[in-house]
Amino acid sequence: MPARMPAGNSPTSAVVLLSGGLDSATTLALARHDGYDCHCLSFDYGQRHTFELDAARKIATAAGVADHRVARIDLGLFGGSALTDETLDVPKDRDDTQLAHGVPITYVPARNTIFLSFALAFAETLDATDILIGVNALDYSGYPDCRPEYIHAFASMANLATKLATEDGRTIRVHAPLIEMTKAQIIQRGLELGVNYALTHTCYDPADDGRACGHCDACQLRRRGFAEAGQTDPIAYVN
Amino acid sequence: MPARMPAGNSPTSAVVLLSGGLDSATTLALARHDGYDCHCLSFDYGQRHTFELDAARKIATAAGVADHRVARIDLGLFGGSALTDETLDVPKDRDDTQLAHGVPITYVPARNTIFLSFALAFAETLDATDILIGVNALDYSGYPDCRPEYIHAFASMANLATKLATEDGRTIRVHAPLIEMTKAQIIQRGLELGVNYALTHTCYDPADDGRACGHCDACQLRRRGFAEAGQTDPIAYVN
Repeated sequence: MPARMPAGNSPTSAVVLLSGGLDSATTLALARHDGYDCHCLSFDYGQRHTFELDAARKIATAAGVADHRVARIDLGLFGGSALTDETLDVPKDRDDTQLAHGVPITYVPARNTIFLSFALAFAETLDATDILIGVNALDYSGYPDCRPEYIHAFASMANLATKLATEDGRTIRVHAPLIEMTKAQIIQRGLELGVNYALTHTCYDPADDGRACGHCDACQLRRRGFAEAGQTDPIAYVN
Repeated sequence: MPARMPAGNSPTSAVVLLSGGLDSATTLALARHDGYDCHCLSFDYGQRHTFELDAARKIATAAGVADHRVARIDLGLFGGSALTDETLDVPKDRDDTQLAHGVPITYVPARNTIFLSFALAFAETLDATDILIGVNALDYSGYPDCRPEYIHAFASMANLATKLATEDGRTIRVHAPLIEMTKAQIIQRGLELGVNYALTHTCYDPADDGRACGHCDACQLRRRGFAEAGQTDPIAYVN
């Protein structure tokens, strides 16, 4: 599902979900490369730390996007994830078998559905039909809401949900341009497009100074991606 | 799509979206009648007034539900609706043709999608597969996200989105028990189940003391419903 070049010469508006991580930073670069006028959306959702949001702001500023909004939502209200509940430990140093199988405790219930729903609301108020999300089905840590069939189902629902689609006759498209790429391919493509990965934050469980732990699933996938791409990861790790 | 009786003798948990209006109060009564252990969810979403939320709290208390949570989300961040933007006027005294056609300015972009997404997250943390929403396709003011095809599409998406469905093999069901009922039928059924409609709030544009305006789309549909049911509406109207 690559982002398609907008028709005509005037830029087409798109909503880009920007977490502050490597994937969403690359997605934003792809969207800009494809000519979209990018309206970024991040979430303050009760994360255990704010380094990710700080990263999102820096990435949006560096990209000079049209608009960047931060929606405050309380996912911690429900609990159920190590990413929003400080009493749950973030798993470390899981091996390939563990990484490849099962939905981990870092899964936040219905998170991408909530994020895409807000993106849909934002798109509708912009009269925009394109939404981009940096999910990745290969190196994805086993989250169900990172798979192509989920993205397709969300788009089908969105086209029945909105005035934009049902009354104005427009087609809402959810683009997941990274979905079939490996982490190494994502990094390679991002570097070609000039993404400054030093601005991105990936770690689930950073030190107080923001350095990445190096051992959670997200750090492991990122480090392996840089190694496979033959590139140096510019961020600092605790070890 | 009536709510189905849960199997077995122990109560099955369900998430019930509770706005504080007539429809959601009736949906809650139906869910309780069907034997569900009800976990209610309301939203503080930047409404122009809080009478609706106060009503939701009273309805939940009166019903003695297991759990009632209020999620704070900022839909006003995007604007685009008379329900969240004080600079837009709530339409009054629209005639039948106007009520029957077109999506009105009171439509909040992607609102039910956002509400159902949060309900899905809540359900998943409860290990519950049933979600109830009081949408109504007949007297619905023209909102696209109140139609059966939309509800079905959301459920299909939900079953691809969640650990509960994809890993645990459960089927998530979104019940919209009022969807094919007229407002009069809803009121009749609610009264049979003992719903105290004096606790509900329907008006889009109430007076400062909470009295309903009597002339917005929601008031018109409510008043007509009570009249057609041959019942007296117990709430106060400005005129």
